[in-house]
Amino acid sequence: MIETDPKYYVDGVLEGNRKALSKTITLIESALPSHQKLTHEVLDALLPHTGNSIRLGITGVPGVGKSTFIESLGLRLIEEEHQVAILAVDPSSAKSGGSIMGDKTRMEKLSADPRAFIRPSPAGRTLGGVARKTRESILVCEAAGFDVVMVETVGVGQSEYSVASMVDFFLVLLLAGAGDELQGIKRGIIEIADAIAVNKADGNNIENAANAKAAYENALHMMAPASPVWQPPVMTCSALTMTGIDAIWHNVLEHRHLMQQAGEFDRKRREQAMDWFLYLLDEGLKEWFYQLPDVKEMLPGIRRQITDGRTTAMAGARRLLETLSTMLQNDS
Amino acid sequence: MIETDPKYYVDGVLEGNRKALSKTITLIESALPSHQKLTHEVLDALLPHTGNSIRLGITGVPGVGKSTFIESLGLRLIEEEHQVAILAVDPSSAKSGGSIMGDKTRMEKLSADPRAFIRPSPAGRTLGGVARKTRESILVCEAAGFDVVMVETVGVGQSEYSVASMVDFFLVLLLAGAGDELQGIKRGIIEIADAIAVNKADGNNIENAANAKAAYENALHMMAPASPVWQPPVMTCSALTMTGIDAIWHNVLEHRHLMQQAGEFDRKRREQAMDWFLYLLDEGLKEWFYQLPDVKEMLPGIRRQITDGRTTAMAGARRLLETLSTMLQNDS
Repeated sequence: MIETDPKYYVDGVLEGNRKALSKTITLIESALPSHQKLTHEVLDALLPHTGNSIRLGITGVPGVGKSTFIESLGLRLIEEEHQVAILAVDPSSAKSGGSIMGDKTRMEKLSADPRAFIRPSPAGRTLGGVARKTRESILVCEAAGFDVVMVETVGVGQSEYSVASMVDFFLVLLLAGAGDELQGIKRGIIEIADAIAVNKADGNNIENAANAKAAYENALHMMAPASPVWQPPVMTCSALTMTGIDAIWHNVLEHRHLMQQAGEFDRKRREQAMDWFLYLLDEGLKEWFYQLPDVKEMLPGIRRQITDGRTTAMAGARRLLETLSTMLQNDS
Repeated sequence: MIETDPKYYVDGVLEGNRKALSKTITLIESALPSHQKLTHEVLDALLPHTGNSIRLGITGVPGVGKSTFIESLGLRLIEEEHQVAILAVDPSSAKSGGSIMGDKTRMEKLSADPRAFIRPSPAGRTLGGVARKTRESILVCEAAGFDVVMVETVGVGQSEYSVASMVDFFLVLLLAGAGDELQGIKRGIIEIADAIAVNKADGNNIENAANAKAAYENALHMMAPASPVWQPPVMTCSALTMTGIDAIWHNVLEHRHLMQQAGEFDRKRREQAMDWFLYLLDEGLKEWFYQLPDVKEMLPGIRRQITDGRTTAMAGARRLLETLSTMLQNDS
């Protein structure tokens, strides 16, 4: 049963009540228009209590050891009195039936600890939808008092870019590969990393990991850093031997400190909010446009003509956009 | 004086008449609604005669020797009986007053040759506008019989991405730098390159260029190639000593051959056309939306509230999008 009183959610979240927090996120994830309306009311009320966490994004291909890494880091942080929330963005999970962190046993110790909150990836067919829900969930976790929010994603499609645009620090986990072709890492992912960590640097793998670290350092040095105050470091770590985890966390804090000192931290968050606003506007506008009866009727034929080279992209777009000028005339 | 009969442009271009070609591009560049309408008629008529050129994009920061490189390659190609057109995308030129290739004397020999056609960057305040004009100009050059169309851009803002999305092959020119921080090359640019050429590999610079080549090769090998049939090569060249220019051209041809064989060539062009269609739709839709009276009135205040943290991106977008649902109700 879903509560319909916004006060239930707002008060519960602000008190740090886990059940209310979970229910609020369930509300966010609901597609029902009435729930969406309620979500908006709840989020508007929670807004003044948001923004106070360290938002940490973590990505890596399956098998890189993300869950174990996140559990190790999470356990370290709750020891230091942090309140840690873990969310996921995984648009593939809906299709595959699986979900990153769908099985909480993958973070057995952490999920049993009352100082941590773990929420699997919401269902959703589009990355945009999943990302929207996760963004809103970050705010709710902050309002509930969590001061570290980790957002996990698997490196599929565009999900890393989406997660990077909602966090303060974006960490890319990699494995040491066999020489050159390191796990087919997508070009461009290094571009958005605030740090790279070569995971599973333990046992026989220590030397491989050190070599991979050097190779990635070279690759990073070939590129201009995204911020003038931060050159993304390459590190090694092992969740198994708990090596390097502290160093990574100190990096996150150092990054925050330098960014705040340079005024870049607030600037980045403001930019992210504005980008998100423009993105939502754009998405909402397209959603509205593509369900207009005229557009729905004409679009398939025009697409076919463009693919077959029977019309230009320009002419096709023009024909569809005429729908709008007609509408304006009707309206005025 | 601008001709108003579409036949003048269409016939002239199809005959390969330079004056008609120039005038058609001037028409494309005009912002007047009546000219835009005429442009559409002309392009629709020319469409069946387009698509038959090798579309080659070339980028590099100022000072890398782009003009000299393009002139050398262009002269080589007209010797081989190619018809070469050179266009530019440079959204910065309108602001700075300067323009890449604005001064044709930078390609003195080539511009004097009747087998080549050189057109400076169109004026325009936005990259989108400049890119649109250049895309349409490519089609017109093809209809006029040019079988190689080069599109030059300076690595500013997003212009490289824009050019990469309208060509078959995207070449990035670089210089050998002093070690690590090579000319502050943007991360991400390597991602869209089909080849990288280290220019000015002559005289005392030959060794530096070879070292830079090796360094970029390493960086490229760290990343998965964009196409399964093509691993972007790194080359060196000198327009001064005419070294490496042929090798680059053979690379362009080899790339075309492999892509065609794998069916990737047509697929890429179709995708580019569809992306362009969706982009134009999106841009047209936004243009229409942002000049709606309600939106114009509300937008500045909502932006301010988001920047100040007084409202969320979600709530702000929602308020603006309500304008649309009202409109639908009026319309039905």
